[in-house]
Amino acid sequence: MSKLRGASGRSFSEFELIARLSKGIRVSRRTILGIGDDCAILARPRGQTLFTIDSLVESVHFDLRWGTPEQIGARALTVNLSDIAAMGGRPTACVVNLAVRDGISASTLDGIYEGLRKAAREASTDIVGGNVTRARELSITIALLGEIGRDAMRRDAARPGDEIFVTGTLGDAAIGWRILAGKIKPPKDRAARKFVVERFLNPQARLYAGERLASLQPTPAAIDVSDGLMQDLGHILERSGVGAEIDASRIPVSAAYRALMGDNLAHALTGGEDYELIFCVQPGHSEAALSRRLRIAVHRIGTIVRGKRLKVIGASAPIAAGWDQLRSRG
Amino acid sequence: MSKLRGASGRSFSEFELIARLSKGIRVSRRTILGIGDDCAILARPRGQTLFTIDSLVESVHFDLRWGTPEQIGARALTVNLSDIAAMGGRPTACVVNLAVRDGISASTLDGIYEGLRKAAREASTDIVGGNVTRARELSITIALLGEIGRDAMRRDAARPGDEIFVTGTLGDAAIGWRILAGKIKPPKDRAARKFVVERFLNPQARLYAGERLASLQPTPAAIDVSDGLMQDLGHILERSGVGAEIDASRIPVSAAYRALMGDNLAHALTGGEDYELIFCVQPGHSEAALSRRLRIAVHRIGTIVRGKRLKVIGASAPIAAGWDQLRSRG
Repeated sequence: MSKLRGASGRSFSEFELIARLSKGIRVSRRTILGIGDDCAILARPRGQTLFTIDSLVESVHFDLRWGTPEQIGARALTVNLSDIAAMGGRPTACVVNLAVRDGISASTLDGIYEGLRKAAREASTDIVGGNVTRARELSITIALLGEIGRDAMRRDAARPGDEIFVTGTLGDAAIGWRILAGKIKPPKDRAARKFVVERFLNPQARLYAGERLASLQPTPAAIDVSDGLMQDLGHILERSGVGAEIDASRIPVSAAYRALMGDNLAHALTGGEDYELIFCVQPGHSEAALSRRLRIAVHRIGTIVRGKRLKVIGASAPIAAGWDQLRSRG
Repeated sequence: MSKLRGASGRSFSEFELIARLSKGIRVSRRTILGIGDDCAILARPRGQTLFTIDSLVESVHFDLRWGTPEQIGARALTVNLSDIAAMGGRPTACVVNLAVRDGISASTLDGIYEGLRKAAREASTDIVGGNVTRARELSITIALLGEIGRDAMRRDAARPGDEIFVTGTLGDAAIGWRILAGKIKPPKDRAARKFVVERFLNPQARLYAGERLASLQPTPAAIDVSDGLMQDLGHILERSGVGAEIDASRIPVSAAYRALMGDNLAHALTGGEDYELIFCVQPGHSEAALSRRLRIAVHRIGTIVRGKRLKVIGASAPIAAGWDQLRSRG
């Protein structure tokens, strides 16, 4: 075991840290044994198990100066919850690996865990295991389990003729991130600025919408928007062996987006971190009916077609690109 | 998405990397959907679920110069498999988070994944999800699921009068690590040196022994030796609210250990990374019968007693310490 050196110069062991961070964690009756043994023990799930892992790395995905430690902790879970939402499942339990560098104060770690605990509680998810290690940079890696009692929404289920919908609005988080990272000048419209920065710092996983979507017949294809509409829709196209036509004029953007970007749809098309859901359903669902069902505004943005191209029409400047070209831009 | 720069200067996207590393991964029929969607989908397990996470970080847990990338990949899974072994379960599926720094070649990553795939195959464990991220140092974080159809072996199950056993030999890996890290002079006895270095680089999870142990009635208390006998036995004592007396003269050490360390038991008592099992059972089990049952040599090293102290007797220099004092040494 090695010592971690806090901001105050005080050293603490990895054991002391995990004990400190585990305080106040409550678990549901699904969890037979939580933190404190070699493994957690979980009751037999009701349906199939969903399993995913994601990581937030300092200087790649977040900066401690951008917001509060609580926001980082919550976000680390939310990016995983969003993967469960995209398949229509219900999150159940997670394990957390925290890599800590020298110079991080115990109160920062407390804050990260406070945000994590709160996000877990809101999503009825148990934190059942934790590991702390030393590293050169701070990172939080969470593996999350979910359960699903029906067919999951998969990326490979899109069929020609399906209509493509998206929840909420796109591109806000990408602008917020660019403002925080100093990549674009802080806009004068403070309300708009606040809105997009909030969208980046406090993403919401569309768990309710995902569960409601998965109950449609036939089961929709779906994915969450983590890397941007073009890229993430591209994953559906690749896995389903189909193409798509997107009508840029139908892509939902917020009033703040309009105020900051005007008609420039670049961030709505390619910006990530929104954690909205893209889904493909057979024709016959109106935007209004789906919005009521999912309890969030949804917009129809295009159609699944034969072929392998993702074509964008209706933008002021026409955009057309195969998703694989976009993909290789990384 | 951001680009990773390989050793050759060639950049590759995180998507390209995950696609490359996922090639050649086969899964069992327990896995309904593996790598390639938002989550993996797993069939309903037969019993309760075990869930654990662990991480290997470059410069903290390994150095690329010490061995092969295959060994690092295998080790990253083995440290998790050992946690399943310590509870008596059977590993089923894992998800892998790979953090990659600039300057790591694609062939190094291929090697890590090759070792990981091989270790997973040998343990009948499916690799069902992967995430790749940029970072300042290389690390591999794996979350592992297992299943168990009977009561798990827990740390809190030790009772006064129980006899304490350990599988295999202790302290080898700690010496091997110190040789690799340049903390002790490379010994002249090359066979002994090779043996202890191998024990560090190629640890084995005691999965068969764990499963066989868990079928004993009453279910033993158990833990794996990741941080050293004193520390890990200390976890059993803390969780069970008991003390222990260890007879140092009975602690099993290898011929290589004797050749390199003579009568100095420090590494056998406090050195980690052996991934042997410590377990506590009611009296009546002989070393010979248990060794046959578990298919590995086991030795009785002491007894669980009332109180809260971990007392070591029979060493050439008497050692007595509360486990909590040892613990705070970190």
